[in-house]
Amino acid sequence: QSNYKVAILSGDGIGPEVMAEAIKVLRAVEQRFAIKFTMQEALIGGAAIDGAGQPLPPQTLSLCQQSDAILFGSVGGPKWTGLAPDQQPERGSLLPLRKTFDLFCNLRPGQIYPAFAELSPLHPRVSSLGMDVLCVRELTGGIYFGEKGRGDDSAFDTQTYSKAEISRIAKVAFEAAMKRNRKVTSIDKANVLQTSILWREVVTEIAKDYPEVELEHMYIDNAAMQLIRSPQQFDVLLCDNLFGDILSDEIAAIAGSLGLLPSASLNGSGFGLYEPAGGSAPDIAGQGIANPIAQILSAALMLRYSFGQEAAAVAIEQAVQQCLEQGIVTRDIQPDSRYGTADVGDAVAAAI
Amino acid sequence: QSNYKVAILSGDGIGPEVMAEAIKVLRAVEQRFAIKFTMQEALIGGAAIDGAGQPLPPQTLSLCQQSDAILFGSVGGPKWTGLAPDQQPERGSLLPLRKTFDLFCNLRPGQIYPAFAELSPLHPRVSSLGMDVLCVRELTGGIYFGEKGRGDDSAFDTQTYSKAEISRIAKVAFEAAMKRNRKVTSIDKANVLQTSILWREVVTEIAKDYPEVELEHMYIDNAAMQLIRSPQQFDVLLCDNLFGDILSDEIAAIAGSLGLLPSASLNGSGFGLYEPAGGSAPDIAGQGIANPIAQILSAALMLRYSFGQEAAAVAIEQAVQQCLEQGIVTRDIQPDSRYGTADVGDAVAAAI
Ligand SMILES: CC(C)[C@H](C(=O)O)[C@@H](O)C(=O)O
Ligand SMILES: CC(C)[C@H](C(=O)O)[C@@H](O)C(=O)O
Repeated sequence: QSNYKVAILSGDGIGPEVMAEAIKVLRAVEQRFAIKFTMQEALIGGAAIDGAGQPLPPQTLSLCQQSDAILFGSVGGPKWTGLAPDQQPERGSLLPLRKTFDLFCNLRPGQIYPAFAELSPLHPRVSSLGMDVLCVRELTGGIYFGEKGRGDDSAFDTQTYSKAEISRIAKVAFEAAMKRNRKVTSIDKANVLQTSILWREVVTEIAKDYPEVELEHMYIDNAAMQLIRSPQQFDVLLCDNLFGDILSDEIAAIAGSLGLLPSASLNGSGFGLYEPAGGSAPDIAGQGIANPIAQILSAALMLRYSFGQEAAAVAIEQAVQQCLEQGIVTRDIQPDSRYGTADVGDAVAAAI
Repeated sequence: QSNYKVAILSGDGIGPEVMAEAIKVLRAVEQRFAIKFTMQEALIGGAAIDGAGQPLPPQTLSLCQQSDAILFGSVGGPKWTGLAPDQQPERGSLLPLRKTFDLFCNLRPGQIYPAFAELSPLHPRVSSLGMDVLCVRELTGGIYFGEKGRGDDSAFDTQTYSKAEISRIAKVAFEAAMKRNRKVTSIDKANVLQTSILWREVVTEIAKDYPEVELEHMYIDNAAMQLIRSPQQFDVLLCDNLFGDILSDEIAAIAGSLGLLPSASLNGSGFGLYEPAGGSAPDIAGQGIANPIAQILSAALMLRYSFGQEAAAVAIEQAVQQCLEQGIVTRDIQPDSRYGTADVGDAVAAAI
């Protein structure tokens, strides 16, 4: 029997509510598979600012260091928007976690589910063609972490990329494409940026090891346009940190179902942070109506990528699929739904 | 009688065809208003690479320097994609023109025309609410023009902004908002970038001079999402060079009618470059089916911003509106249309 230590960082807003359902589902997994989870909670984000004076307290960091993976809820809310940028819940927790654990690889799947194509803000003539993309985003380099500073009358930020940084994320994209539809669209601005020229060179080089995968290069401005015009043309999108930030949110908007989208942030040794793509949604927090599916699917990604428990991951994903088909969903998915957060969690757990 | 010198840079692909119609319309303007245009053509882009060995030959640059404005077609095509990035038609012509003439201000209106809402790839429940945004993009600073370079194993780009650069573009946005719906949404990534923190400070300061204008700050990732979810919430978008590049193309995709969207790139003394938002569309070049309206509306913007001929600008815009209402449009707007490029140009000219 495998035993995994999971750091549970629920955070703010709807974080704790949806996390409770993910935990419920993980307990159901324990019943069916020879897996045991040791889950321990710690403060993060706004709750940590209030409770421990900073968004990522040392105790939280050391819990993460002693764990096999981090299951992350969501952080932020109106209460903390007045703080300096680097002390705010989102930035003050996520950026140092990414850097400390070298979580260089962010995976964000985005789908238009055929049964829920109406959720997409795209025209039916577009959304009916579907979308099934995986955004692979470099997460520990680029303009996020380069030298930056401020003078009296000016400011600067530096974007740097090394060949090693680019090739390790490119490999992830090509490996993922091999298990999907064998197409990688690499995003850059090589007509303007030196880092993009290097990006294009390295990606082209890595592509040689994957002759079955079609490689396409696309400028970021064109990609922002093409995703709206015909999202079905994409399979894997390979992006640097900043472009991936922008496009993954654009993809989420196109999917129209933030409440269904999980994400994984991984390092090279199987450690990862798993979180829903959506935010803390303070406007609906505490009402028991938040959609727990993105959090539950994040737990499935944890089983897959950090624990190598593919069967258990698939069991969760199938259970979720079953609930979607049976219409056991919250109001963001079906406005007239009578199901709440806990109902959905119960149904997924029961289906496992 | 006013006499204006216009440098005509038609470029590649559909550029020459749609430019011919814009010239036709300017000749019609001469008939009705006390205005005379001295128009002189020069090579640009791929045509200039082929004809003079470089995308922006010295003769072209000096023609521009002797002119009161530049009417620009579109550049680029498959023939030149193998060239080094800085020698390609688009980058090799536009970037030096922007820098030489200090064209710091790019204006790109984006609309969902109620009568043509079906052109938008957005769902009718979204597109029926309309969109009418003006993207104000800083065009001569930021990561486009900062120090950049290449080492053996790495590359870097620098984004710098000074207070002066930010305040001059911010003023343009607020002035524009005063004539529109009095809302400015300033785009940044102030949770990560020092240049964005400065951007936010300066914009907030400038806003004090425009108490009637509502100012909102939005992160670039959220803006990429919100534009798709509810584009009707925006009036003026104020963006740095890179974010404006991305969002203006996203807006064009949402409008769904690239062939209708003009743009203006201005400096502080009334000089400007006017061009359609769309590209050179080599796939349909030479067939007489390209939509000339974006080029014609670009000429209207030239009359407004460079020549202060508001009445003539409005006359063109109304003539275009009339053609749209009468269905005298090319196939990109109405698939079963029997009108070609010249028909639309004739109709607009006749309506003036
Ligand atoms: C909170 C912010 C720093 C973060 C980012 O930009 O990476 C967020 O937008 C994300 O995508 O996880
Ligand atoms: C051709 C390219 C350098 C240019 C830019 O990025 O500014 C283009 O995309 C534009 O928006 O005019």
